[in-house]
Amino acid sequence: MELTNDLISAGQYSLVYNAFSFTFATMAAATLFLWLGRSQVAPPYKTALLISGLVTAIAAYHYLRIFESWDKAYTYVDGNLEATGLAFNDAYRYVDWLLTVPLLLIELILVMRLSQSETASKSWKLGIAAALMIILGYPGEIADDNGTRALWGFISSIPFAYIVYELFSGLGDSIKRQPENVRGLISKARLITFASWGFYPIVYMAPFVGFDGAAAETIVQVGYTIADIVAKAGIGVFIYVIAVRKSRAEYPELYAEKPAAAPAE
Amino acid sequence: MELTNDLISAGQYSLVYNAFSFTFATMAAATLFLWLGRSQVAPPYKTALLISGLVTAIAAYHYLRIFESWDKAYTYVDGNLEATGLAFNDAYRYVDWLLTVPLLLIELILVMRLSQSETASKSWKLGIAAALMIILGYPGEIADDNGTRALWGFISSIPFAYIVYELFSGLGDSIKRQPENVRGLISKARLITFASWGFYPIVYMAPFVGFDGAAAETIVQVGYTIADIVAKAGIGVFIYVIAVRKSRAEYPELYAEKPAAAPAE
Repeated sequence: MELTNDLISAGQYSLVYNAFSFTFATMAAATLFLWLGRSQVAPPYKTALLISGLVTAIAAYHYLRIFESWDKAYTYVDGNLEATGLAFNDAYRYVDWLLTVPLLLIELILVMRLSQSETASKSWKLGIAAALMIILGYPGEIADDNGTRALWGFISSIPFAYIVYELFSGLGDSIKRQPENVRGLISKARLITFASWGFYPIVYMAPFVGFDGAAAETIVQVGYTIADIVAKAGIGVFIYVIAVRKSRAEYPELYAEKPAAAPAE
Repeated sequence: MELTNDLISAGQYSLVYNAFSFTFATMAAATLFLWLGRSQVAPPYKTALLISGLVTAIAAYHYLRIFESWDKAYTYVDGNLEATGLAFNDAYRYVDWLLTVPLLLIELILVMRLSQSETASKSWKLGIAAALMIILGYPGEIADDNGTRALWGFISSIPFAYIVYELFSGLGDSIKRQPENVRGLISKARLITFASWGFYPIVYMAPFVGFDGAAAETIVQVGYTIADIVAKAGIGVFIYVIAVRKSRAEYPELYAEKPAAAPAE
């Protein structure tokens, strides 16, 4: 998304600036939570938290870069906001997704603790489809004409459709086999992952409806940060809760204590 | 809060500058204390210390940013302090609260070690109310006229009233069920959390009584740092002491030692 001549206002600039800083802080905090929280779960779930923390750590790095790029793209001259001529590098987002979207799908598979062969095959299939989806969308994102944009958008939606099919059909049976106290949470995590992705194609398609200018840029940047926080930090917390509950159910001896202190439930 | 034309003095500038650096050091130190201190408590209390340390870590990050912003907002020209034209970004505070205030309430709930369902439901209710309170206060904070400020201030006080009700009524019963050796501490932690919040609405309302200018700015910035240190690092230490006491009482085997050295109790 290129900045247009229609210059962003000081209020819009500041909103996006603070949203980027907020997202960096959220991602970094989520990373520390997920990694330190590994001590709270049984060994089979430690990898799911490790990967979930990697996703937020990679996002924290990219938001720091995005924040700096935004900071350098504008300056105040005599109290008025002006473009410095340094382009805001939005491509950090594609680089981020190329790493994080496959990992997000893998963390969802890992916390389900399927058989070794099932974990490997589903991780490969979904991971490669996710990477393809991002790579194929990129030529459209940087294209100047809407025709090229539509073409790559269409091609990129083929792996997307495959992921949706695998998530809701392939993983559906596995979810039914999950313990009852986490089944609902896993379904919700899957739905939130899917729903948070809904924002990305909307932004991709924005140029088709002439949605641009300073207000559009502001909405897009703030919208991306919300979608990223939900999809990465939000899902990370879900994965943590699922991992803790399954650990407690499957490894009661790790959580054993003297009966007198047991909670009421 | 905007800086007025009434320029801050070198002494005021330096006081705020040092207060920000002090607060960064305090928050970072509290974070290390709380995280390293996790090894001193029993497993059910490790999450409370993890979250308490996250709160101070997030605050440390924001104080680093606030410090840098303050540093860049002024410069010395021929020995005289002058504004550089780069606005001091006080919005870092709102961004910080949006993350830390819900977490502060959650750490208080976690250290009480309620049942799983009670922990989840109270964390959601209080966390969402706290986030709403911050979000709804923001449009008033950046408003130019006092009418808009009053309106959003009023709307934001609805979730605030709900939090106070939940803290003192809903959590009241749970506090009565806590072990005797920590009941007083938990009540105090709740009271300090509530009291330290008292500073924020006072500052919010300052424009109504014409409280502005360089002296007001200095008081506000120093006051915020004190309120933040009490509410975050101070409460963190309370949470640590409560967690250690409860761990000792509930998991005596973790603290067992040779009889001769056993404490009198």
